[in-house]
Amino acid sequence: MNLEKEIKELAVAVKAAARVLAATATTEKNRALLAMAENLRRQREFLQERNRIDLDQAAANGLSAAMIDRLTLSDLVIEGMAAGLEEIAAFPDPVGEIERMWQRPNRLKIGKMRIPLGVVGMIYESRPNVTADAAGLCLKSGNGVILRGGSEAFHSNMAVLKVLHEALATTTIPPAVVQVVPFTERKAINYLLACEDEIDLIIPRGGEGLIRFVVAHSRIPVIKHYKGVCHVYVDAGADQEMARRIVINAKTQRPGVCNAAETLLVNQEIAAAFLPRMLAELKAAGVEIRGCARTCALVADIMPATDADWAAEYLDLIIAVKVVDDLAAAVSHIAQYGSDHTETIVTRDYQRAQEFLQRINSSVVMVNASTRFSDGGQMGLGAEIGISTTKLHAYGPMGLEGLTTTKYIIYGDGQIRE
Amino acid sequence: MNLEKEIKELAVAVKAAARVLAATATTEKNRALLAMAENLRRQREFLQERNRIDLDQAAANGLSAAMIDRLTLSDLVIEGMAAGLEEIAAFPDPVGEIERMWQRPNRLKIGKMRIPLGVVGMIYESRPNVTADAAGLCLKSGNGVILRGGSEAFHSNMAVLKVLHEALATTTIPPAVVQVVPFTERKAINYLLACEDEIDLIIPRGGEGLIRFVVAHSRIPVIKHYKGVCHVYVDAGADQEMARRIVINAKTQRPGVCNAAETLLVNQEIAAAFLPRMLAELKAAGVEIRGCARTCALVADIMPATDADWAAEYLDLIIAVKVVDDLAAAVSHIAQYGSDHTETIVTRDYQRAQEFLQRINSSVVMVNASTRFSDGGQMGLGAEIGISTTKLHAYGPMGLEGLTTTKYIIYGDGQIRE
Repeated sequence: MNLEKEIKELAVAVKAAARVLAATATTEKNRALLAMAENLRRQREFLQERNRIDLDQAAANGLSAAMIDRLTLSDLVIEGMAAGLEEIAAFPDPVGEIERMWQRPNRLKIGKMRIPLGVVGMIYESRPNVTADAAGLCLKSGNGVILRGGSEAFHSNMAVLKVLHEALATTTIPPAVVQVVPFTERKAINYLLACEDEIDLIIPRGGEGLIRFVVAHSRIPVIKHYKGVCHVYVDAGADQEMARRIVINAKTQRPGVCNAAETLLVNQEIAAAFLPRMLAELKAAGVEIRGCARTCALVADIMPATDADWAAEYLDLIIAVKVVDDLAAAVSHIAQYGSDHTETIVTRDYQRAQEFLQRINSSVVMVNASTRFSDGGQMGLGAEIGISTTKLHAYGPMGLEGLTTTKYIIYGDGQIRE
Repeated sequence: MNLEKEIKELAVAVKAAARVLAATATTEKNRALLAMAENLRRQREFLQERNRIDLDQAAANGLSAAMIDRLTLSDLVIEGMAAGLEEIAAFPDPVGEIERMWQRPNRLKIGKMRIPLGVVGMIYESRPNVTADAAGLCLKSGNGVILRGGSEAFHSNMAVLKVLHEALATTTIPPAVVQVVPFTERKAINYLLACEDEIDLIIPRGGEGLIRFVVAHSRIPVIKHYKGVCHVYVDAGADQEMARRIVINAKTQRPGVCNAAETLLVNQEIAAAFLPRMLAELKAAGVEIRGCARTCALVADIMPATDADWAAEYLDLIIAVKVVDDLAAAVSHIAQYGSDHTETIVTRDYQRAQEFLQRINSSVVMVNASTRFSDGGQMGLGAEIGISTTKLHAYGPMGLEGLTTTKYIIYGDGQIRE
């Protein structure tokens, strides 16, 4: 077996199938999504039987309970996959939408029409439910997709694929629009990342190590974010009760995700009044605090922060706290240590609210709201296939529209260029 | 001197200056553009004196007359650079525009605001006027820019930079927002392409060899097109006079550019009536014809095309001609041999016009118009810094808007996530 050649052939087949999908009507795509959902429910026992092989292997290899939990296709997870596909069927189809149309002095009529990207390559870690989610989002947006999950989930992913293919076979859409790389060798990823003539976009989902590996080896554009170091800035004169509520929510509601807050910046004018109760509430919520010198001077028993704390993505019940002179100092701190993910200001001041929105160029910038709202679903984008902190193509949460591009269409009546 | 370190420091300085530029008002950016234009005119003699060094070197190295022509900063070229900057000043500023705003059930108000990309790296060949054009477009869109021109134009580019810096010094914009790499070593490009923390986008302009080199070595996203193999498809029942006018214009009006037509596809139903006069007109215009077997059977004295002709970007007075069965065959031919640049159909049929616009996913798709209109200026995009045939970020001619991205802004009143 020649691995490189097999991967290339897989990519060529997906590209050819994706061309048919790109011209498929929304009604047929929705019919396929509903058939996929139905077949996932019907084939629950088959899925769990194949999942069992991966789970036994994981137990034998001594994987952590958390890893095994993520790997398990429970009844609830399978129902979630099916319901997710039904939700995607209900979203509007971005493909074919014409954004605007204008007329030139020579009467050429020019517009921008949304079209699929072509083929998406998705590289992710062990959760097999991503296989169905990503397949659904790519199908709805008219893209072929090649999925490469973690090797621990190999049998589960291949089983999900079989169930999706059975459903697609009842439609006019070629099943080959969705494929799972049927090899567990790491080298398969390298070959996938070299298929620049077949694959238009790579989306890695997983830890920073996986993402850096993909970026370093890909000849195809990559949508990525390495980490989320999100800031809450409490302005002078802020509503302190609102500020405490937002900080507690941003830090503790789900600390393990990228839109959780990692650093609290507090204006010096409000620090003495605000910090003692704020830090007491954080401690009561089980949060460990690492403070700057001014924070430690204001509140007893705070661990001093080191420079590494300002850049840390804890993904845990830990927060770094810094007192800053003014808005400009907060902006500078974020420019130096931020990750372009999400920042929020808590303020009552109109001018400074606008200034924060203007001067912070992170992918999501908020006034008086928790960073936890930085999420495609919460923001009304429909669904989220990833989040980008690279400014090219998509910046911020990326939904169905991020899986499309626009081509120019021109209506003429015989115009030639003079 | 440590070249790698110097390039990195240059990029860091441009990034810092770009942060100031990003927050600069449109009026001040326009004032800077007009000052740059004025100073180019005032310093004409200085520019030509420095240009002379490059021209003497070029003559000594035996460069072709065409190359020397492209290198020369004549009065006309300098006036064109100045006028170009004045035009850019007159374009609307995309930065700060809020595309749309929507409200969520929890009353969060969410919008997309246009912001600069940050820093653009521009790598191009010998024309020194590109230095002023690119500087102007990046400045207007709020981006820092690092320019790396051909080494043959080194003294000219440094002189243009000096003149632009003098003008910027009379404004509040830090002159460091525009820089030319002050080294001629080829290795400097590699170091530039590794500055992924400072540079957000690379735009190469030049031959396919330069572009492939940049893509192979860049860790930064690259906007590119390798070539333009543009097609004209003449449908059954087309207005033959219109078809001839469009083909002649698309092929001969300026054959050396990427939006010139390279292949003519003709529906079999119209071929016998259309091709003899069409090919005679092309020959009369000095165009060499390479025909498929059916073309050669219809018209005498046509050189047979080989498979290589269908993929060729001649950039010359040569055209490949193929008779196809129907629209589907034309679409397949374009999918196989096209370059995703620009294609046009000449037709009277409503249904087939729409079908062509739907099924061809090139960056620009036209009905009844010359491919030569595939150009930012002609399409009303304001100006063109490049053209992309990669579907990510920008697809097709790329103007000021392509040099920006959008961030999400969110107005809340204390919302937290449940």
